[in-house]
Amino acid sequence: MQEKERTKQKTIYDISRRAGVSIATVSRVLNDSPKVSIKTKERVLQIIEECGYEPNAFARGLGTGSMRTIGILCADVADLYLANAVSYLERELRQNGFDTILNCTGYDHERKAACMKAMEARRVDAVILVGSHYIENTPEKNQYMVDASVNIPLMMVNGYLKGDHIYCNLSDDYSAYYEAVGNLLDSGCQDILFLYREATYSQSQKQKGYTDALSDRGKVFRPELVLQSNGKMEQIKEDLIQYYGEGNRFDGILASDDELAIGALKFAKAASLTVPEELSIIGCNNSVLSICCEPELSSIDNKCEIICVNTVATLMRVLDGQKASHKTILATEYIQRGTTKENM
Amino acid sequence: MQEKERTKQKTIYDISRRAGVSIATVSRVLNDSPKVSIKTKERVLQIIEECGYEPNAFARGLGTGSMRTIGILCADVADLYLANAVSYLERELRQNGFDTILNCTGYDHERKAACMKAMEARRVDAVILVGSHYIENTPEKNQYMVDASVNIPLMMVNGYLKGDHIYCNLSDDYSAYYEAVGNLLDSGCQDILFLYREATYSQSQKQKGYTDALSDRGKVFRPELVLQSNGKMEQIKEDLIQYYGEGNRFDGILASDDELAIGALKFAKAASLTVPEELSIIGCNNSVLSICCEPELSSIDNKCEIICVNTVATLMRVLDGQKASHKTILATEYIQRGTTKENM
Repeated sequence: MQEKERTKQKTIYDISRRAGVSIATVSRVLNDSPKVSIKTKERVLQIIEECGYEPNAFARGLGTGSMRTIGILCADVADLYLANAVSYLERELRQNGFDTILNCTGYDHERKAACMKAMEARRVDAVILVGSHYIENTPEKNQYMVDASVNIPLMMVNGYLKGDHIYCNLSDDYSAYYEAVGNLLDSGCQDILFLYREATYSQSQKQKGYTDALSDRGKVFRPELVLQSNGKMEQIKEDLIQYYGEGNRFDGILASDDELAIGALKFAKAASLTVPEELSIIGCNNSVLSICCEPELSSIDNKCEIICVNTVATLMRVLDGQKASHKTILATEYIQRGTTKENM
Repeated sequence: MQEKERTKQKTIYDISRRAGVSIATVSRVLNDSPKVSIKTKERVLQIIEECGYEPNAFARGLGTGSMRTIGILCADVADLYLANAVSYLERELRQNGFDTILNCTGYDHERKAACMKAMEARRVDAVILVGSHYIENTPEKNQYMVDASVNIPLMMVNGYLKGDHIYCNLSDDYSAYYEAVGNLLDSGCQDILFLYREATYSQSQKQKGYTDALSDRGKVFRPELVLQSNGKMEQIKEDLIQYYGEGNRFDGILASDDELAIGALKFAKAASLTVPEELSIIGCNNSVLSICCEPELSSIDNKCEIICVNTVATLMRVLDGQKASHKTILATEYIQRGTTKENM
């Protein structure tokens, strides 16, 4: 029983590591490719026998080029940020000779896990999970990803999960929000509202940056200045009108995406608050939305393209059996536009 | 030679039609499925023999469910309209048990044709081409699609190409623009600028609606009031500032997408023209951009979701061997917001 369990856990990664060759080479051996020297072939086959390794479909397909397909999971490709990310990822994968299978999972945990299973069944070479929604707040709910990563590498865009075959590229949301609070305080703001949409990994990093910055600047953190709002722009505006009507006062809004920030801009107009004189607003993603509104929106550019290029570059190294970083955090950039004052 | 050519042209569709059974049934026969009655099986096999038909991979896979994959080609999934369309299509396909392979082809003809070839090689069950960019202005450049459709059904979203196995779902751009001109004239506009991005099938329909409406209302068509502008919002604004600086005057702008229309709104601000009093603006797609700007943008809702739902429903009928419409034109809806006056 114990023997069987140990055998079960062996993957193509273990063979590649033990034999000191790339995964592609192991795969070529399994596919009886003439490109591998007889000496290497014999060594790999011997290690495979020693380990009792049974190649899965993934390993068999890689060398022959019969699949060369990467699965992309995202909640909804109609989301502006996710659409951009999928566009960059698909481009990079194609340039590396890989096809993209896209599956929009929605936000429900069961659906996400089912979609991952479906990707495994499709025998893709790897799965890229796009967006921080994939990280849930209990280990149990993240287990399906850890399980999947035993057989195929998982790449995460803007999410972080620990695992031997999980590779994460994230924007530095913590520092971005820490610095944005500093910018707002420097420009004269006193009471900064943190406006977020839903509790995700990314959101928690942003909020931590917000609270730490306040604390480091000697400001008291006021929990009532953290507001959740969901839905479309009109709903966000209405939520803020109600919140303001309840007597809450603030002269800065730090929003966790651009749509929230534009909802805030609509609220400002409704409440006859001048922007940025009476109310400063900062969004996030530096999406096309940020240049549609009037005044144009100051926003945090989280460098979606760089993250995606890096994700695919990391994946190519992983598939080639090279070492790769499990967690790469990429710097963001604050884009100053009309909804914030120049620093005083 | 002639005999061979005739044989070559036979497809699973021909067998299905001659035998009076669905494509799925022909496929089941080819896969030796027990679900087909012996009588049907014998008839189908006889027709196959008579025709000298050789089943392709597509036909062999369909019955066994080994592929159930649809290829989606779009120029760039980061484009707002295309992202929405891909999101709806993927959802509908998934609900019908089909996976989506996404390939972003860009706008170059060679690349599009190469991507189509790659999809055929992937042995997808059908290809959906999203966006009117796929229709070029010479039959030679469209031939690769006609060729591909011999073996797999092609579905077009917002493009039209004639072919036995090509099924097109389009928004009624002609009527939308015809009516929009009427709305602008009724609200007191005299000189309406038609602002477009690039020459596509959709654009030609829109422009025809524009010119016909002017003509039917007794207005002289002035070619100088048709302006092309490309690039990002800031570029569109600059193009209009230059055009205006050359002495061109207009009190209405009918744009072929929302981004152009918001560029026009930025121009209006730069030229100190009040919107909608001195300049009315109408966009197209009714995208999220239309509610970001101030005033909010009047826009033509081209019912992307309905088109996509209809496209997948049509495809399911086609794959099931049922009759389906080769060209379905779906009505649009004019959404009145702050950039146009109420009709006088």
